[in-house]
Amino acid sequence: MTLAPFNPTPRTLMGPGPSDVHPQVLQALGKPTIGHLDPQFVAMMDEVKALIQYAFQTENPFTIAVSAPGSAGMETCFVNLVEPGEKVIVCRNGVFGERMRQNVVRVGGEAVMVDDEWGTPVSVDKVAQALADHPDAKFLAFVHAETSTGALSDAKALCALAQQHEVLSIVDAVTSLGGNELRVDEWGIDAIYSGSQKCLSCVPGLSPVSFSAKAVAKLEARTTPVPSWFLDQTLVMGYWGGGKRSYHHTAPVNSLYALHESLRLLQQEGLENAWARHRAMHEKLKAGLEKLGLSFVVDEASRLPQLNAVYIPEGADDGAVRSALLERFNLEIGAGLGDLAGKAWRIGLMGYAAREENVVLCLAALDEVLN
Amino acid sequence: MTLAPFNPTPRTLMGPGPSDVHPQVLQALGKPTIGHLDPQFVAMMDEVKALIQYAFQTENPFTIAVSAPGSAGMETCFVNLVEPGEKVIVCRNGVFGERMRQNVVRVGGEAVMVDDEWGTPVSVDKVAQALADHPDAKFLAFVHAETSTGALSDAKALCALAQQHEVLSIVDAVTSLGGNELRVDEWGIDAIYSGSQKCLSCVPGLSPVSFSAKAVAKLEARTTPVPSWFLDQTLVMGYWGGGKRSYHHTAPVNSLYALHESLRLLQQEGLENAWARHRAMHEKLKAGLEKLGLSFVVDEASRLPQLNAVYIPEGADDGAVRSALLERFNLEIGAGLGDLAGKAWRIGLMGYAAREENVVLCLAALDEVLN
Repeated sequence: MTLAPFNPTPRTLMGPGPSDVHPQVLQALGKPTIGHLDPQFVAMMDEVKALIQYAFQTENPFTIAVSAPGSAGMETCFVNLVEPGEKVIVCRNGVFGERMRQNVVRVGGEAVMVDDEWGTPVSVDKVAQALADHPDAKFLAFVHAETSTGALSDAKALCALAQQHEVLSIVDAVTSLGGNELRVDEWGIDAIYSGSQKCLSCVPGLSPVSFSAKAVAKLEARTTPVPSWFLDQTLVMGYWGGGKRSYHHTAPVNSLYALHESLRLLQQEGLENAWARHRAMHEKLKAGLEKLGLSFVVDEASRLPQLNAVYIPEGADDGAVRSALLERFNLEIGAGLGDLAGKAWRIGLMGYAAREENVVLCLAALDEVLN
Repeated sequence: MTLAPFNPTPRTLMGPGPSDVHPQVLQALGKPTIGHLDPQFVAMMDEVKALIQYAFQTENPFTIAVSAPGSAGMETCFVNLVEPGEKVIVCRNGVFGERMRQNVVRVGGEAVMVDDEWGTPVSVDKVAQALADHPDAKFLAFVHAETSTGALSDAKALCALAQQHEVLSIVDAVTSLGGNELRVDEWGIDAIYSGSQKCLSCVPGLSPVSFSAKAVAKLEARTTPVPSWFLDQTLVMGYWGGGKRSYHHTAPVNSLYALHESLRLLQQEGLENAWARHRAMHEKLKAGLEKLGLSFVVDEASRLPQLNAVYIPEGADDGAVRSALLERFNLEIGAGLGDLAGKAWRIGLMGYAAREENVVLCLAALDEVLN
């Protein structure tokens, strides 16, 4: 077996993630590896923490990057906070709400489902009803931006309900962070997780997470050990917490260089500017897609700018179109997922991918392939 | 808050890991990110699998890289294989045996401890006795190369005992893979995990794992769901298994480029040659350390070539010496861990770090700082 070095063909990434990585982030990624307890690295980690706090708009001291992809960030929230027998109201309007349910079940919790149609936002009214019907619920869990459908839910209203009913909110912000408005402290979010590979323009593999003081208190009051050793935040905080950094596991050093650079770029641009850029690029893409006769899965009012799910037009071959885009134009768009598999495409405009050259390339390439 | 890009000072990494990353691996890491379902990436993943099989010397079809550091690889073995109430004989002769125990307890298993002094190998006789005393045990778990002490245990003899008693072996090869002899199929190892950042000369963040047919059968016969969704190998195999790659979580694309390159380099050198190189560099380092009057924690017979734990000489200030090495020579060596904290240093010769220029730099720098 003699293998050649791997040389990927550069692609334009306009799927559901990973999205285009900023060139400065790739550069940062390849910088020399140093030790995870090196004073230089520890100082950088303090900056990473401050930058995640900025991106989440929070002052939570408990703000870290989990050393694994977004689905481990999700699991971090559930394994640390939900104890066996506890009731969690889980909103399901796509793939990731269902994944939350599976997390609840695996830690021995009880999931009360609030279902909404794929492509629609989580119904605030139904959640209010569920909270009223289940006064013993301890958590409300929902996805802010459903990557499988492109629907944006009203996180502010949902978290207000959670506070009113004194339950903790657990919010999936994998696709929303950096792409649309998100204010952890102002909205009163208790536990939130995201991913590095969406609107942060970073490589996949890390998951920013933040817990409110109430979530930390819940964790500290546990009567059973956290079922996962790797994701046990009572141990991880020894490394991320202030003062002496004690060894828990070896931090993914180079990926954290990349996250540092991507968050630094976001902060340089300014969150509000980044949200506005995603919106502007979405408007331009939307106009072009409609000209091509494509229609959106999600109503305009709750449509995510950074994830555009459109129905596959009649007569078009799903796989053949995506392959042609990839092979002829080095352009990746996403397939449908779950209920939308074979029925929709998902066109991402995430982070560094949300720029004019990508929008016009995507529209022109789709035009050539479809017509 | 205006932050500058992070520019780490290049270091020579001779601690317990991360170790020096091969320059070609860093280059591979920074290559353009493509989609985790891109046909080019999927083809590369097939090569990664074949290369991990080579490194482990196994033909196990169930051979993957977990998308997280070595401690998640450890957890992958325990959460998938050990069910509540099952008895595991756990050998503890350092930090990582104790971590295995914690994993067993968290999945609801019962850990029967076989303790040996820190710095000594796992006693084959004690394990034989424990297996005889506990005919209801289902697993034998031990660390092949204890990173906290530098002791090598006789994995071949221990796995032979496991087979004789019809229990499954779970082996920690985080520090051994690529550094000393390891033959998964020949020795009959059932579940094994390693880390990317030790003797593979790769960046931290990935964990190669392999399960034997017997381990897979145990997983398939589970009567309870795997407690972790993220690490549930019945789901992950949908992505790594042959045929259609279905989405489970977003693979850490760039880190996998790096792992591909590091394994390719290992295969090019040849496993036996890599083992011999670690041994030769160790001999050279050992001669120099003894000249400096430093003595080893571990007896010669069970000393790891790639992890040299030496007692801190009387009169030397642990932190001051390590800081001087780092600040004056950009050389990192490791502190003691657990029982050996403040008592020993750990000098790594792992992967790309096991070369002559590192050995002479380390000896000369230690000489300057100590004398």
